[in-house]
Amino acid sequence: MAISLRSRIHVAELLSKGEVGKEYTVAGWVDTVRAHGGIVFVVLRDRTGKIQLVVKKNVSKDAWKTAKNLTPESVIAAHGTLVESKAALGGRELVVSELVVYSKADPLPIDIKDHSKTILAKRLDWRFLDLRNPRNLLIFLVEAEMARAAREWFYEHGFVEIFTSKIVGAATEGGAEVFSIVYFDKPAFLAQSPQLYKQMGVIAGFERVFEIGPAFRAEPHHTTRHLTEYTSVDLEMGFIDSFEDVMDAVEGVVRAMIRRAISVYGNQIREYFPDAVLEEPKDIPRITIREAYKLLESAGVEVEWGDDLSSEGERKLGEIIEREYGSPIVFVTEYPWRARPFYTMKKPDDPEWTLSFDLLFRGLEIATGGQREHRYEVLVKQIEEKGLNPKNFEWYLNMFRYGAPPHGGAGIGLERVAMQLLGLGNIREARLLPRDPERLTP
Amino acid sequence: MAISLRSRIHVAELLSKGEVGKEYTVAGWVDTVRAHGGIVFVVLRDRTGKIQLVVKKNVSKDAWKTAKNLTPESVIAAHGTLVESKAALGGRELVVSELVVYSKADPLPIDIKDHSKTILAKRLDWRFLDLRNPRNLLIFLVEAEMARAAREWFYEHGFVEIFTSKIVGAATEGGAEVFSIVYFDKPAFLAQSPQLYKQMGVIAGFERVFEIGPAFRAEPHHTTRHLTEYTSVDLEMGFIDSFEDVMDAVEGVVRAMIRRAISVYGNQIREYFPDAVLEEPKDIPRITIREAYKLLESAGVEVEWGDDLSSEGERKLGEIIEREYGSPIVFVTEYPWRARPFYTMKKPDDPEWTLSFDLLFRGLEIATGGQREHRYEVLVKQIEEKGLNPKNFEWYLNMFRYGAPPHGGAGIGLERVAMQLLGLGNIREARLLPRDPERLTP
Repeated sequence: MAISLRSRIHVAELLSKGEVGKEYTVAGWVDTVRAHGGIVFVVLRDRTGKIQLVVKKNVSKDAWKTAKNLTPESVIAAHGTLVESKAALGGRELVVSELVVYSKADPLPIDIKDHSKTILAKRLDWRFLDLRNPRNLLIFLVEAEMARAAREWFYEHGFVEIFTSKIVGAATEGGAEVFSIVYFDKPAFLAQSPQLYKQMGVIAGFERVFEIGPAFRAEPHHTTRHLTEYTSVDLEMGFIDSFEDVMDAVEGVVRAMIRRAISVYGNQIREYFPDAVLEEPKDIPRITIREAYKLLESAGVEVEWGDDLSSEGERKLGEIIEREYGSPIVFVTEYPWRARPFYTMKKPDDPEWTLSFDLLFRGLEIATGGQREHRYEVLVKQIEEKGLNPKNFEWYLNMFRYGAPPHGGAGIGLERVAMQLLGLGNIREARLLPRDPERLTP
Repeated sequence: MAISLRSRIHVAELLSKGEVGKEYTVAGWVDTVRAHGGIVFVVLRDRTGKIQLVVKKNVSKDAWKTAKNLTPESVIAAHGTLVESKAALGGRELVVSELVVYSKADPLPIDIKDHSKTILAKRLDWRFLDLRNPRNLLIFLVEAEMARAAREWFYEHGFVEIFTSKIVGAATEGGAEVFSIVYFDKPAFLAQSPQLYKQMGVIAGFERVFEIGPAFRAEPHHTTRHLTEYTSVDLEMGFIDSFEDVMDAVEGVVRAMIRRAISVYGNQIREYFPDAVLEEPKDIPRITIREAYKLLESAGVEVEWGDDLSSEGERKLGEIIEREYGSPIVFVTEYPWRARPFYTMKKPDDPEWTLSFDLLFRGLEIATGGQREHRYEVLVKQIEEKGLNPKNFEWYLNMFRYGAPPHGGAGIGLERVAMQLLGLGNIREARLLPRDPERLTP
């Protein structure tokens, strides 16, 4: 009888719901294999867990011969009878009557049982093997779940998904950190963010839009928190009263993401990531950047009033907030005008500051946003103030001449949320196929 | 009293659930405005519909003055009392006590009431205004809903979302139609598809993966069905018995997408798109390409056995299938080896053909997929047969040396599904910000 994978059951389901004495088909990778006279013990691993297969010569000589020659990480399917076993994982094992090998594995180039034995660069070179380690795979299961939670939040709150183009005719966020493309005979670039397009979505009549997609930054830096390509969770909302509405939205999304990760994968996260956050953040405190400067100054950190926070300042502030407010996460608001892009709305009564914010999670910026200037004349002035030429923004400016609602939005870095949630030391761990100035493969 | 947008109600909800005699706040764009002595009638439009505002001098002189000077497409909010009205849209109107203008519109550069009066190129130049026409906005509401339906199908069937990198070190699908990037000092490209990475996802242990994201093709063609950037709904699944499993998945996803679009937006689709498909396709017929050749030959169309179908052949085949099977949609299977990429699995008993398929919707390819070759030695041979050098595929080939399950997958073009569903004449209509050899803006 040939094994049919259509009747395959996942290990977790088999261990929790399988009936002893019945026959089942499982499939996956060989985690370990150990021969013992007329019996071969094979631990099979699939995405959901591990189960012991007992392959006895006196049950099936063919299966036993096959099992004897198995190598770790080979792909197999097995059919057999579920029996109780005190010795086995999960208290049950499968006595195999049939065994198929789909793919025999060569000896492995890296240790996949203990990721700490291999440097990260080499792990990434062998990413498809690195992820055979359940700890590493979990990072991406968490990210998938967080993206799902974010979308569900967006749907519930009237946001429409848009798919904006990543090939653009002009740099979105300023000239320096943008990749050029050879686009037939024209100059073109990779979008640094969907900023202008999500504003377009609001103005075009979608009112509220979101997009979860790639963003590209030609960051020449080699840090543990920068990538040249990352997944940006972007939102933009029209008809707001103030930038507090945008912060409410960001708070809603980020808390939904973290809540979902913990509720679905909390046990595994606890097992594999000793530094992870395991509680959903409560109401997120909001402090102005001026209060942040003061807190940092009281802690002996030098700050320049009117400047952005340094990454060291953000880290330190995270510690202070954790201590003073008991929160791993904090909104810092009203960033100085000189540290924000031209489209940011200024604070009406104090135009040195803006209606903008960053969200810091354990001392690292995971989101940035604010209210956008929607008044044509003011916007032209702000472009000029930044030393830019309004003529180069004609298309963008036109959007504000035919009815633009008050609006604001934010971008959230998916990998950064995962990195801070799980307590990873390097953002590359949180990206399936990280890109940096040195790395383009796999 | 200042209007708060937090208490705003959408028009559709107000018309269906609002209580006559109560006060409400609405906000949106001025659809039309018409003064009539001491009364100004303003039709306000938001994402959900239109409502008439009645602004009377004797209720609020301020509001009346403001209303008199309103221009179409200006953005406003109004507060007032809901009353019954036989003359008004939806049988109800709002008698306004307070009116705020957020953004006053200049005279419009294009006619947004009748999209047929403006050529598509100009409509796209003014995309943010073009979408103020509910017909045009609807296309993207449909796409958002189809993406949502696809994801829900994936979640229900054990697929994990992955975010693959779009910056790649080598061309994925062959050298010709790929965009180059200036990536620091290295040669780099834009991913033509996540093909190799979704296979990596399966092999790495996710077992089943999906991604909805941008794909880039340096297509120099100027046709009504090609874009240089589109949204690809990609899936890949391990532990399959045959490529029929992949077709079952594609059928599940595509039917879910179409079903959802019709169930959520059927009435509006009927109103705006006379050529739309308004019934969910039943079981999708599956015919081999050899049967397709024969059907086309009987219809007097010349075909070359062993070649791909021409776009004219696909169109004609769509008509025949519609007539013979009563289905607007059909799987054509077992494409010839010489027309498929190296990673396609050949038909075991007849290696001139492959375990692959295209899905045609109203005579246009909307998806392509198949079973992938997972046996290392066979794969090396197939790369050589295609005149390629296995050394250039070292990273990819390595994935098959350490345990690769039998697997297959497909890519579905989101814009093409929308185009065929709605009966649009040009794929640019179905893309928010279309890119082709000439167009990089907005």
